[in-house]
Amino acid sequence: MIRAGIVGASGLAGGELIRLITQHPDMELTFLGGSSHVGRRPAELHPGLRLDLGLTVEPATEATADRVDVVFLATPAPVSAELAALFADRTAAVIDLSGAFRIRTPELHDRWYPKAKRRTDLADRFVYGVPELVGDQMADAALISLPGCYATAITLGLAPLTLGLGLDLRTVVVDGKSGSSGGGLQLRTADLHPLRNGAIAPYAPVGHRHAAEVRDFLERNKPGSVGSLSMSAYGVSHVRGLLASSYVFTDEAVDQRELQRAYVRFYKEHRFVRVRRHAETLIPVPDPQAVLGSNFCDVTVMHDDESDRIVVLSALDNLVKGAAGQAVQAANKRFGLPEETGLTMQPVMPA
Amino acid sequence: MIRAGIVGASGLAGGELIRLITQHPDMELTFLGGSSHVGRRPAELHPGLRLDLGLTVEPATEATADRVDVVFLATPAPVSAELAALFADRTAAVIDLSGAFRIRTPELHDRWYPKAKRRTDLADRFVYGVPELVGDQMADAALISLPGCYATAITLGLAPLTLGLGLDLRTVVVDGKSGSSGGGLQLRTADLHPLRNGAIAPYAPVGHRHAAEVRDFLERNKPGSVGSLSMSAYGVSHVRGLLASSYVFTDEAVDQRELQRAYVRFYKEHRFVRVRRHAETLIPVPDPQAVLGSNFCDVTVMHDDESDRIVVLSALDNLVKGAAGQAVQAANKRFGLPEETGLTMQPVMPA
Amino acid sequence: MIRAGIVGASGLAGGELIRLITQHPDMELTFLGGSSHVGRRPAELHPGLRLDLGLTVEPATEATADRVDVVFLATPAPVSAELAALFADRTAAVIDLSGAFRIRTPELHDRWYPKAKRRTDLADRFVYGVPELVGDQMADAALISLPGCYATAITLGLAPLTLGLGLDLRTVVVDGKSGSSGGGLQLRTADLHPLRNGAIAPYAPVGHRHAAEVRDFLERNKPGSVGSLSMSAYGVSHVRGLLASSYVFTDEAVDQRELQRAYVRFYKEHRFVRVRRHAETLIPVPDPQAVLGSNFCDVTVMHDDESDRIVVLSALDNLVKGAAGQAVQAANKRFGLPEETGLTMQPVMPA
Amino acid sequence: MIRAGIVGASGLAGGELIRLITQHPDMELTFLGGSSHVGRRPAELHPGLRLDLGLTVEPATEATADRVDVVFLATPAPVSAELAALFADRTAAVIDLSGAFRIRTPELHDRWYPKAKRRTDLADRFVYGVPELVGDQMADAALISLPGCYATAITLGLAPLTLGLGLDLRTVVVDGKSGSSGGGLQLRTADLHPLRNGAIAPYAPVGHRHAAEVRDFLERNKPGSVGSLSMSAYGVSHVRGLLASSYVFTDEAVDQRELQRAYVRFYKEHRFVRVRRHAETLIPVPDPQAVLGSNFCDVTVMHDDESDRIVVLSALDNLVKGAAGQAVQAANKRFGLPEETGLTMQPVMPA
Repeated sequence: MIRAGIVGASGLAGGELIRLITQHPDMELTFLGGSSHVGRRPAELHPGLRLDLGLTVEPATEATADRVDVVFLATPAPVSAELAALFADRTAAVIDLSGAFRIRTPELHDRWYPKAKRRTDLADRFVYGVPELVGDQMADAALISLPGCYATAITLGLAPLTLGLGLDLRTVVVDGKSGSSGGGLQLRTADLHPLRNGAIAPYAPVGHRHAAEVRDFLERNKPGSVGSLSMSAYGVSHVRGLLASSYVFTDEAVDQRELQRAYVRFYKEHRFVRVRRHAETLIPVPDPQAVLGSNFCDVTVMHDDESDRIVVLSALDNLVKGAAGQAVQAANKRFGLPEETGLTMQPVMPA
Repeated sequence: MIRAGIVGASGLAGGELIRLITQHPDMELTFLGGSSHVGRRPAELHPGLRLDLGLTVEPATEATADRVDVVFLATPAPVSAELAALFADRTAAVIDLSGAFRIRTPELHDRWYPKAKRRTDLADRFVYGVPELVGDQMADAALISLPGCYATAITLGLAPLTLGLGLDLRTVVVDGKSGSSGGGLQLRTADLHPLRNGAIAPYAPVGHRHAAEVRDFLERNKPGSVGSLSMSAYGVSHVRGLLASSYVFTDEAVDQRELQRAYVRFYKEHRFVRVRRHAETLIPVPDPQAVLGSNFCDVTVMHDDESDRIVVLSALDNLVKGAAGQAVQAANKRFGLPEETGLTMQPVMPA
Repeated sequence: MIRAGIVGASGLAGGELIRLITQHPDMELTFLGGSSHVGRRPAELHPGLRLDLGLTVEPATEATADRVDVVFLATPAPVSAELAALFADRTAAVIDLSGAFRIRTPELHDRWYPKAKRRTDLADRFVYGVPELVGDQMADAALISLPGCYATAITLGLAPLTLGLGLDLRTVVVDGKSGSSGGGLQLRTADLHPLRNGAIAPYAPVGHRHAAEVRDFLERNKPGSVGSLSMSAYGVSHVRGLLASSYVFTDEAVDQRELQRAYVRFYKEHRFVRVRRHAETLIPVPDPQAVLGSNFCDVTVMHDDESDRIVVLSALDNLVKGAAGQAVQAANKRFGLPEETGLTMQPVMPA
Repeated sequence: MIRAGIVGASGLAGGELIRLITQHPDMELTFLGGSSHVGRRPAELHPGLRLDLGLTVEPATEATADRVDVVFLATPAPVSAELAALFADRTAAVIDLSGAFRIRTPELHDRWYPKAKRRTDLADRFVYGVPELVGDQMADAALISLPGCYATAITLGLAPLTLGLGLDLRTVVVDGKSGSSGGGLQLRTADLHPLRNGAIAPYAPVGHRHAAEVRDFLERNKPGSVGSLSMSAYGVSHVRGLLASSYVFTDEAVDQRELQRAYVRFYKEHRFVRVRRHAETLIPVPDPQAVLGSNFCDVTVMHDDESDRIVVLSALDNLVKGAAGQAVQAANKRFGLPEETGLTMQPVMPA
């Protein structure tokens, strides 16, 4: 059994990690860390999880390393930066869900994460990426940094164009729509139910940092493949799941059939990415409600002949494939388990 | 592997059965039945379930019996009444989720299910009940009838009072609140999103037939234990999950501490019933969002000293513990598996 | 023009008072009071109200009295208790929306409002009640106290039974379902959108103080008419509007037809109370979505022959008929205007 | 009093017209038309509207013209095309809310409205446009065609750029997010509450006809001002209100300050368009919840320095400013009333 610890156990991603790890056949939860809620049991923090784990929240210290083989950091970027240093070389794997080690280009990191000072000693040792897109790198990686929820969806949506078809994307306009769980449980007036329900809240109409993260990754993997990539993000009136719409303009000729084939081929070996046709079921897809609770990312690609653009839609559960599920998937790769171990749950729909 | 078939595979309970059976380690799905949508694959009917099962919807016939060990009837009561006759004595187990065989008292059955003519040849052979409350009966039962979603919640809420504490309940007033998935996917104007969202719809202020079902069961198990039991039911503005509030007036003296102990004791051996204190977590419980997607029924009991009544709240996911999950639980009992096999998933919350 | 001031202008009821008063043909808003948000304009506090009133939030002082003919106190009970003393005898009308002066029986007041010390000098001078049920008393009242949102709905639902038909109600069980706006905009984790959406939150399963308020009023108006009255309250997954279900057991014989007639007759002259049949429209009524934004209270009465009980359902918009609208209605009566002045807006539905 | 008739009185826009006209000081409702629901009273069709109008739904005929001064056509485009011919020259004003007469360029009309054959005899007599953008044309127009809900929002968002600042917009990418009321009350499985709640439904990822409508209008008013304009539309999990996001790329230099000033100046005289700063209130705006039930369109413009694009957000209530409210506004202009007559209601928020 792989001994797993979570820091940030009281947050939403932390709760989701508890859910997934306690369902995992080859992992056992041995540590719950956090700086607040110390002494609390999971059920007190996560209303659904009334489990008898015999664990309560504790501060993470150097001694914690002896109790875990892998530690998941579900902490804010500045905290992750410090904890990574604490656990690096002391545990077999550190898996960071924050933005502390995502952006490789130093100036870009400093610009978008000014509060999480770049750890130059560690930054280059981290393997970053959507597990589907980094090949075997995670198998040997003691330090793993995972993309943000939007970055995961957008990158999975665009990679078949740049890395599969080899297209150069002149202009990419991303419009992101997500539920309220994306904002966590911080006390903000705008996130109270009366003001958030029924909203279409333009919370980041310009300047979302996941845009920089995506471009940084794609450009590193195929220099020159992305001209401009801009993003606007909106909170809509549900809780879990996001849809990223990427509107792509390219100078190269490509048609619907070619696109569809390329996407199917690109993800043939990757069971968590489901390439779907827009009208293949009762409701138009992809729709985040159709992946709820699961580790799937649904992707649809369409050529808009009218305006000569490519429309790529990608939907995922921000707490699973966008956070905790992807983290477990990365851990599976790190420890040589089949990628889907403990992650085979189907979506809960309708919900 | 237990070969399982589903009739009514295109409905919501049918979809949930597909989800659970394909995740079950000891069952395999070998038949999808239905009279409409013949020829369709699961993904076309259930947007979340893009599975490669090699099955499409077929009409159920006598020959179907050879392909299954257990058949789940997720069909309307009149259809179940016919199919039960078709499959009885031809398969090892028939598990009916409808109301066709729930009410034992013949006059009551005829009154509440006038369209599902009582099959006198079969009715008495059916074991009916919440699996937690029928002991070992299901192990030997070839024919099993499961309670309605509300009946499950209310019965689990009241049983510790009558069967545990032996109280006589003079008057029970039940107020039920459920999401829209309780009504299925029939095309009714009142169920369109614009009219159903934001609603508190008093769809059955008087005359809900689950009240008769509950009383029939409790009275059979402890005659004289329930004086009057009335029920009113409301649709509220979410999709999945229900809360049943039972307001109980009894002439016998009982206090909070005694009640709490009795409930904990009564369900000590039953992992799917979680006896919870009202304030044990971040949100007041029980709340159906805290059991979403799982087979749990959360129960809270309180003594209202002010008005000398007992307040029992029970919450469950109407499609899982109130339908498909409970059906798999019954099948597990029937086939000698541990009750929780394939049903260990934790709630997906928040969603 | 009647000069109107609001204290508590930054809260939800305060915002609704601004909305209604600025639409009122015979009132003008001359004062916005509050202890927090001093200096803010309405648009900064109420996202929908981008008005050019030339007013910002100020502390209420004795001098405020000179600028207003009527002051609406949309403040917590302890604050209202103090402000009432400040404004009494200095303005033509003080209209309190809080619980400070609702319960007449001193012991009951102290029990349910321990933090709002009873002002014995003022308490008896307040006229309390739903405007429809106090006849002409408000015309001469300088001090008016209005019922809570639930109390308004329940009292309007029960009054035709006790005051109209003269029934004695042995046992009344009230089950209340309301949206999240009932809890205001205080920062509580349980009220954040991710935890509140999809909830059926049993926030007051026992001990809701509106039950005491209703019983106190009905008993004062017809002693002996209410035996026991208990209440349980739930937050459901929408924002605005509540439904109160009153389950009534009486020893006197009465049937559906008699009940329906009695209700229609009782409210014949009261345009804000709409007596509705359960199935008179596309959706079952009463449903709070069908009164949204309006000053209507919809009431339906049904006799449940099965269990020999009376089911009374009453729905209203908790911020309008349950707060700001009712306050304007009371002010209209106080100043001799037709009751409906400025309150003729129809419900906004669907929303 | 202006005598007003509505055809399509049973639909959502029809219901909203009833709400607004019965609140209008200078209009009276004299005719309710429709081909279905004949004989029904408004309360039977619109659960919120329990009015005593003495009207029931009737078929529209030539004789209807004698009973009305203005007829509002809230009918599908093919029906409007026929009814326009019936009422033209027989009533003082025909106001069409459908797409029958929106697109001027004949080929474009035929392409996007193949079922509503172009009435060449009438098409050129119709004045089409957002009332704010057509100057005095509606004062003399017997035939008025109003933009679709999305077209209204997008056009109001872009007009200050092309008509105000005189910019040429190289590429415009529109992403539209709307509630379920936009789809009306037709019985479609995908619109049932269980499948629609919690959805982000990409119902028109390519090929939304409002894009053609907007471009046709802007190009007619300033030829060459719009290069390409593409649109994708999504249904999100609320009922009423839409947000249109227009991402604009232009070759001309412009900065935030200039943009803000231009928008304020452009709409200075138009009270229904509120130019708002993104952070001016408790929640980020524009957000359709902040205009609910009102005739406002909120517009925000931002320059994204990062990607050198202009982000324009416009929000409105699709049933008011996007349909019935705008129609009344047009009628006001037609009959020489102040534009805002009967339309001064403030938003109902939170709801």
